Amino acid sequence: MSNDSANRMWGGRFSAGPDAIMEAINASIGYDRRLAAQDIEGSRAHAAMLAATGILSDNDAEAIREGLLTVLSEIEGGSFEFSTALEDIHMNVEARLKEIVGEAAGRLHTARSRNDQVATDFRLWVRDQLDAAEQGLTALMRALVAQAEAGADWVMPGFTHLQTAQPVTWGHHMMAYVEMFARDRARVRDARVRMNECPLGAAALAGTSFPIDREMTAQALGFDRPAANSLDAVSDRDFALEFLSVASICAMHLSRLSEELVIWSSAQFRFVVLSDRFSTGSSIMPQKKNPDAAELIRAKIGRIYGAQTALMMVMKGLPLAYSKDMQEDKEQVFDAADNWMLALAAMEGMVRDMSANREALAVAAGAGFSTATDLADWLVRALGLPFREAHHVTGSLVAKAEAMGCDLADLPLAAMQEEHDGITEAVFDVLGVENSVASRTSYGGTAPEQVRAQVAIWKDKLG
Amino acid sequence: MSNDSANRMWGGRFSAGPDAIMEAINASIGYDRRLAAQDIEGSRAHAAMLAATGILSDNDAEAIREGLLTVLSEIEGGSFEFSTALEDIHMNVEARLKEIVGEAAGRLHTARSRNDQVATDFRLWVRDQLDAAEQGLTALMRALVAQAEAGADWVMPGFTHLQTAQPVTWGHHMMAYVEMFARDRARVRDARVRMNECPLGAAALAGTSFPIDREMTAQALGFDRPAANSLDAVSDRDFALEFLSVASICAMHLSRLSEELVIWSSAQFRFVVLSDRFSTGSSIMPQKKNPDAAELIRAKIGRIYGAQTALMMVMKGLPLAYSKDMQEDKEQVFDAADNWMLALAAMEGMVRDMSANREALAVAAGAGFSTATDLADWLVRALGLPFREAHHVTGSLVAKAEAMGCDLADLPLAAMQEEHDGITEAVFDVLGVENSVASRTSYGGTAPEQVRAQVAIWKDKLG
Amino acid sequence: MSNDSANRMWGGRFSAGPDAIMEAINASIGYDRRLAAQDIEGSRAHAAMLAATGILSDNDAEAIREGLLTVLSEIEGGSFEFSTALEDIHMNVEARLKEIVGEAAGRLHTARSRNDQVATDFRLWVRDQLDAAEQGLTALMRALVAQAEAGADWVMPGFTHLQTAQPVTWGHHMMAYVEMFARDRARVRDARVRMNECPLGAAALAGTSFPIDREMTAQALGFDRPAANSLDAVSDRDFALEFLSVASICAMHLSRLSEELVIWSSAQFRFVVLSDRFSTGSSIMPQKKNPDAAELIRAKIGRIYGAQTALMMVMKGLPLAYSKDMQEDKEQVFDAADNWMLALAAMEGMVRDMSANREALAVAAGAGFSTATDLADWLVRALGLPFREAHHVTGSLVAKAEAMGCDLADLPLAAMQEEHDGITEAVFDVLGVENSVASRTSYGGTAPEQVRAQVAIWKDKLG
Amino acid sequence: MSNDSANRMWGGRFSAGPDAIMEAINASIGYDRRLAAQDIEGSRAHAAMLAATGILSDNDAEAIREGLLTVLSEIEGGSFEFSTALEDIHMNVEARLKEIVGEAAGRLHTARSRNDQVATDFRLWVRDQLDAAEQGLTALMRALVAQAEAGADWVMPGFTHLQTAQPVTWGHHMMAYVEMFARDRARVRDARVRMNECPLGAAALAGTSFPIDREMTAQALGFDRPAANSLDAVSDRDFALEFLSVASICAMHLSRLSEELVIWSSAQFRFVVLSDRFSTGSSIMPQKKNPDAAELIRAKIGRIYGAQTALMMVMKGLPLAYSKDMQEDKEQVFDAADNWMLALAAMEGMVRDMSANREALAVAAGAGFSTATDLADWLVRALGLPFREAHHVTGSLVAKAEAMGCDLADLPLAAMQEEHDGITEAVFDVLGVENSVASRTSYGGTAPEQVRAQVAIWKDKLG
Repeated sequence: MSNDSANRMWGGRFSAGPDAIMEAINASIGYDRRLAAQDIEGSRAHAAMLAATGILSDNDAEAIREGLLTVLSEIEGGSFEFSTALEDIHMNVEARLKEIVGEAAGRLHTARSRNDQVATDFRLWVRDQLDAAEQGLTALMRALVAQAEAGADWVMPGFTHLQTAQPVTWGHHMMAYVEMFARDRARVRDARVRMNECPLGAAALAGTSFPIDREMTAQALGFDRPAANSLDAVSDRDFALEFLSVASICAMHLSRLSEELVIWSSAQFRFVVLSDRFSTGSSIMPQKKNPDAAELIRAKIGRIYGAQTALMMVMKGLPLAYSKDMQEDKEQVFDAADNWMLALAAMEGMVRDMSANREALAVAAGAGFSTATDLADWLVRALGLPFREAHHVTGSLVAKAEAMGCDLADLPLAAMQEEHDGITEAVFDVLGVENSVASRTSYGGTAPEQVRAQVAIWKDKLG
Repeated sequence: MSNDSANRMWGGRFSAGPDAIMEAINASIGYDRRLAAQDIEGSRAHAAMLAATGILSDNDAEAIREGLLTVLSEIEGGSFEFSTALEDIHMNVEARLKEIVGEAAGRLHTARSRNDQVATDFRLWVRDQLDAAEQGLTALMRALVAQAEAGADWVMPGFTHLQTAQPVTWGHHMMAYVEMFARDRARVRDARVRMNECPLGAAALAGTSFPIDREMTAQALGFDRPAANSLDAVSDRDFALEFLSVASICAMHLSRLSEELVIWSSAQFRFVVLSDRFSTGSSIMPQKKNPDAAELIRAKIGRIYGAQTALMMVMKGLPLAYSKDMQEDKEQVFDAADNWMLALAAMEGMVRDMSANREALAVAAGAGFSTATDLADWLVRALGLPFREAHHVTGSLVAKAEAMGCDLADLPLAAMQEEHDGITEAVFDVLGVENSVASRTSYGGTAPEQVRAQVAIWKDKLG
Repeated sequence: MSNDSANRMWGGRFSAGPDAIMEAINASIGYDRRLAAQDIEGSRAHAAMLAATGILSDNDAEAIREGLLTVLSEIEGGSFEFSTALEDIHMNVEARLKEIVGEAAGRLHTARSRNDQVATDFRLWVRDQLDAAEQGLTALMRALVAQAEAGADWVMPGFTHLQTAQPVTWGHHMMAYVEMFARDRARVRDARVRMNECPLGAAALAGTSFPIDREMTAQALGFDRPAANSLDAVSDRDFALEFLSVASICAMHLSRLSEELVIWSSAQFRFVVLSDRFSTGSSIMPQKKNPDAAELIRAKIGRIYGAQTALMMVMKGLPLAYSKDMQEDKEQVFDAADNWMLALAAMEGMVRDMSANREALAVAAGAGFSTATDLADWLVRALGLPFREAHHVTGSLVAKAEAMGCDLADLPLAAMQEEHDGITEAVFDVLGVENSVASRTSYGGTAPEQVRAQVAIWKDKLG
Repeated sequence: MSNDSANRMWGGRFSAGPDAIMEAINASIGYDRRLAAQDIEGSRAHAAMLAATGILSDNDAEAIREGLLTVLSEIEGGSFEFSTALEDIHMNVEARLKEIVGEAAGRLHTARSRNDQVATDFRLWVRDQLDAAEQGLTALMRALVAQAEAGADWVMPGFTHLQTAQPVTWGHHMMAYVEMFARDRARVRDARVRMNECPLGAAALAGTSFPIDREMTAQALGFDRPAANSLDAVSDRDFALEFLSVASICAMHLSRLSEELVIWSSAQFRFVVLSDRFSTGSSIMPQKKNPDAAELIRAKIGRIYGAQTALMMVMKGLPLAYSKDMQEDKEQVFDAADNWMLALAAMEGMVRDMSANREALAVAAGAGFSTATDLADWLVRALGLPFREAHHVTGSLVAKAEAMGCDLADLPLAAMQEEHDGITEAVFDVLGVENSVASRTSYGGTAPEQVRAQVAIWKDKLG
């Protein structure tokens, strides 16, 4: 892969050439070629600014800007030959530019350095990913809202400790994830605002003595402003760490939904049926239908958080300004971003395609004395018992029902009155699952009316 | 520590009591007692709301609210006896409240659950820490700005790869950290805005059938609004993970500054003198003055990021709603918060106290051909060489100076002209360290005028 | 907590005293007091050696060794007053020793430093924990073997992707965990062998000019040998990282078993009943029986791996020899060890107490076409079909059974012959769940005879 | 990249085909093709065993075994066309085998499953890496021993807290790393022994009813024994986690040595000169010679430990047996292994090539009152002072020398006697740096004779 005849930039200074190990550990072109479009966009903006400020002639600038477009089309068309000996995307692009436009290419690197160049490229790349994440999250939220709207009043068991706790509605459960992904999306937006500063013009670390116009390049590249300190601009990677943090927290949410889908798809739960599209079979057990996509999404938190760990560890204790350690930033972010986007897309597809097994949900919702809390609340409301006492009476009634092998709603009134003689027929109104969920009308509660209100709000927000 | 006679809440249901192992793994009172003030604040707001909505009598509410103040004063005064058998802070407070106000205490838990209660307590605690972090960061930024103002024009070497690259100013280096900590502070603020929603009223997971007023409790506790989904409100801990992410990234910045202080304090660098206040000696080597505080702050990234790793792993793949695993959230956040605050305070003190060794900085700044870039830039600017050619000529001049054992500024003009005959006397103007930094006047550059401009901006912002 | 009148060791050297922040960040006595017994054991061995080599008089050594026992009994008895101003356990012990034995105490620190002292103390502590882990793992393995022996032939579904795959036996499933914990135990043993070298005598970092006998102290403290390089002996903490790695991998295994217990305890699975001893109830839902211990054990991987992350990050990039950063090693290891031991004990108790629901397991084992693989294998064995073709035929038969709403064993022979006319009555012999597991007699397979063979081997090994 | 006409194994079962997202998230052929050689080796052993046990005809087995060699040569020769539609390496190989040998290929998968197949392949791959790591570590140790032998008596400063503490020898410092890497190598060996069990024959999870001979395949593949529990054999990845743990701890050691090389290469230290081979220049600062390789190696701990974090998180809480999440194991291990091997090779080259700056080391060793401890020890030995008193006197002497602006060896005897009147001329014998290191002859101490003894031991061990 190497190109031994390439003119290494610092060649004259060193007596010994880098050998294979050094090239292998040092060259970044194997992965930073993914920054090609950003690199060329940044260089074009830089060239335009150099011309506008008189540092570069208009002719040279125009030649460079056109030449860069040619390079870009070669890269996008697949005809560009990357050279490991040229180390990185910046040198690969510049070397090719020189072949195309000649000596003028050598004037492009005026008033900048690879340090501010790569910091700019990488920010542009990460910014694109934040935009993609915003879209992916929005699509996923829409799919969840659609599920919630369809099943705003479908009852299902609400679990704590994976034990049936109280009935909730399918719509309510779906909307819980809408809230989570909404916070993820807000984190994406905050991160984007914070990182949208342009490093270009920081040069190696100290700024430059050329009369550059940093506002102009910042604006051309869609940044809100130039970074205010050149040392900081080339040294920090907190924007990448924030990206990875945001992705990790989102991956945590995805892992929870995935876990639920895996459990719900089991023969024992049968709460949902995933589409064939997001399932696979087995090479040896023909009857299997495996929730592969859910499992793979669940696993993505590993590599995304692993990437955060990797970069956090790399950055720990690095003195200013640029250290070569920081070259390890890109592969981690690339891999995390790819897998995050993939996980969002797969989850969106899976949620859109899946069918809740409404009947199984309803049966499960009614089992396990799930309305015990409703009973306790009724004792408080109707009979004025302190909650703790109501709780105690309810416990006795559950024990009695368990002993009789029946549900709470099937206990005879007389049996109930043995535990508390104030209990009346009216108690049976709260023991049905449908009544239970309908009654929980507190703001944010599981009652269908509350779910529908939230669905309406989110449909409006999501457009 | 246990209190075997305590009335375990679910006692009647189980035939066997928890033994020592279970108590050890299950009880949280050993650490969640730190939530006492938040727990009582939340309960007082809840009681007031229950009275306002007619769920509780005014008399009961008043008794409860007064009783809770008594409990708080007992806890703050150190006379409260915590019981492990009562498991957690909620039950400890309620049990004591019952002793003080009698049966009315049993009505406090109406329309809530420990799930929304602890989520509320914990948010209040984390919110306080975000406020403390904001203050700590602001103080640290002020200390850095003061250093920058004093040394806006002190020259020092700017490093890349810990090799001398170009001269920069002390003030510029200090201001780089101001930018970093400013972004940390912005992350703190964003996190605070996002997490400031009140879980209270979500009850166990489904909301409640009592006619509660969630806006009222949210407002009383300083939240911006009630959480919009009860399942989400009791299940998620992303606010804690975001807290830990923000702390971790800040700890990364602190580790970098610490590393620099450790290196700068070495006998070989002598760039700074740390105060005795933040140094220690050795038990066996009396001459040592160790930068202990800097080393300990450098290490804090470990336990803070370790806490994030711990909680991220705990939350991975947990189905909704509350699972007991989530009890592991608090110790991690407590420890990370304590150490973050301590690190900020120690760093602030250390920065305030430290003295730059101005002379050593200046000497180092001039060594190592640090103005080679200035020379290259001059060749571009004055002679119109393409940058790449200027770079090549400069390399040859550096090699020549190295061979002659002199600095660039000491090379005879004739020797220079051997490499490029266009070079004139004017070149010597850019070879001085002071000239070098003064020339880097691009926005955000290291020139004293740029540093002073940033200092002025930040002094204004920081008040 | 501080003791301002204490004589700080390096007091004379510094003009300014450490203030509260420095004391808070610097002092370790708050946690390293847990090393008291190890510290005193090490000092007693050191004193004996100093006397044996003539560096210390016998009288002084005897006084020191007796005095140290007094200090130990004070600490164990709870009457010892720890002083934060004295920073760490070493200085606390020595200061008290001086009060007891006078000036001789000042001779104890000859030919050693706090650096080798703490490295020795900490190794002794970690070694004890490795021994405790070995015991805990052995007890847990015994509990699993007992479960396996009781249920060597109980059929249950074997899952992949949490989908029913093939029937297995309860005993086989239990024995899978025995293998995992056996490897964990082997890792514990390897770690112990590797770390059992004595740092004492390395002094600060360079060894000493006193004619010490390092073999003698190593032997007295149960070490296999003295560490062979003094710089390494005081600088490395890889033994602590290996401890944390071993604990983390074991915690991973524990998390998997815990997850299974949580899922198996759900109303939908009902595969096991956990004892009340390791479950709890709910404050608001009286009918709940929550698998708290299983959830808490599942969560422990978080803090144990978090501790590894913390210490790994602390150690990253530290130059030799001792740096203060390394003081952060102990709290992480203490917390991880405590929680690992607790998790092992709780898991052992939970496994011992739990009851498999044999009937529910059997019913589940037969559902979901779980013997499809047996059918495919029969087609290969009896009819000589290539496996891939057998797999295809089986798929069609499963689809047919699914369409008819029956199980494979209930398909009429004629219907089967429509898919492959070679099928005979003999096929029904392999479609029963009991037959299926009995047939898997390959070494390590799920057949009861294989399980019983492994049980016998392990009962013998575990004693 | 997909091959839509490919016959998906479970195709008949599903109505909907996987779409692009599913293929992207699900297919592993993009990376598991690296297991090709192992996969074919395993299949060849399996086929031979099937023939030996009469499950497969000798003719079929021979055709399969030959055909597999053809496939291998196609893959190694680069002519093999991998198909994403065929998902993984196993199906790619088998599909091609079928083209070559016809129907017999369909009999190869008898009595096995992809679950035991991939577990076997992956173990073989990891085992190879452990062998490679052993070699890499041995080579690195040899390079360090060579440095140590050359500089067994070169004095240099020994640091604690990056402050000069006591003089040590270059050889001693090098040998400290030999000890560290020796423990890493021991961990590699232990891991290899533990993981060397063969999963083949575990089939999907339950073993098989075919009369296979697992000892035969285990032996053919170089395993010590077949895995004893089929569920465990296909479910666990602790061997991969142990590999990553061992690699991470080694990467920690590498990061420390790298940090030292970076610091030592600075203009301020000048302790070593790294070869041009492992350094690079700057695009803008022609005079720079950057320790890139050291920085990149320092950074590798990030991605290696990140990989461990990723896989640990993936495995957390997975129920038995195989879950698709586990597919995420390979990329992490591949990347960590590649980077570990690269880091070992680069470090070996860098250590071999580097030159200690003997003069600079000696000058630094003598500065900073580095023999203060020798002075204190002399006071104990010669005058019988308790160590604590000797320490105090030494502190005063250091303060006096500092005030006089001279070194300890330059203090007049009279000035010394002002602090303690017992001091004699003999004290000056211990104040020289050479004397200091020569005196530290305790086992493992820094004295050249000790260093040479360790060098001899290691040269013998390393061969």
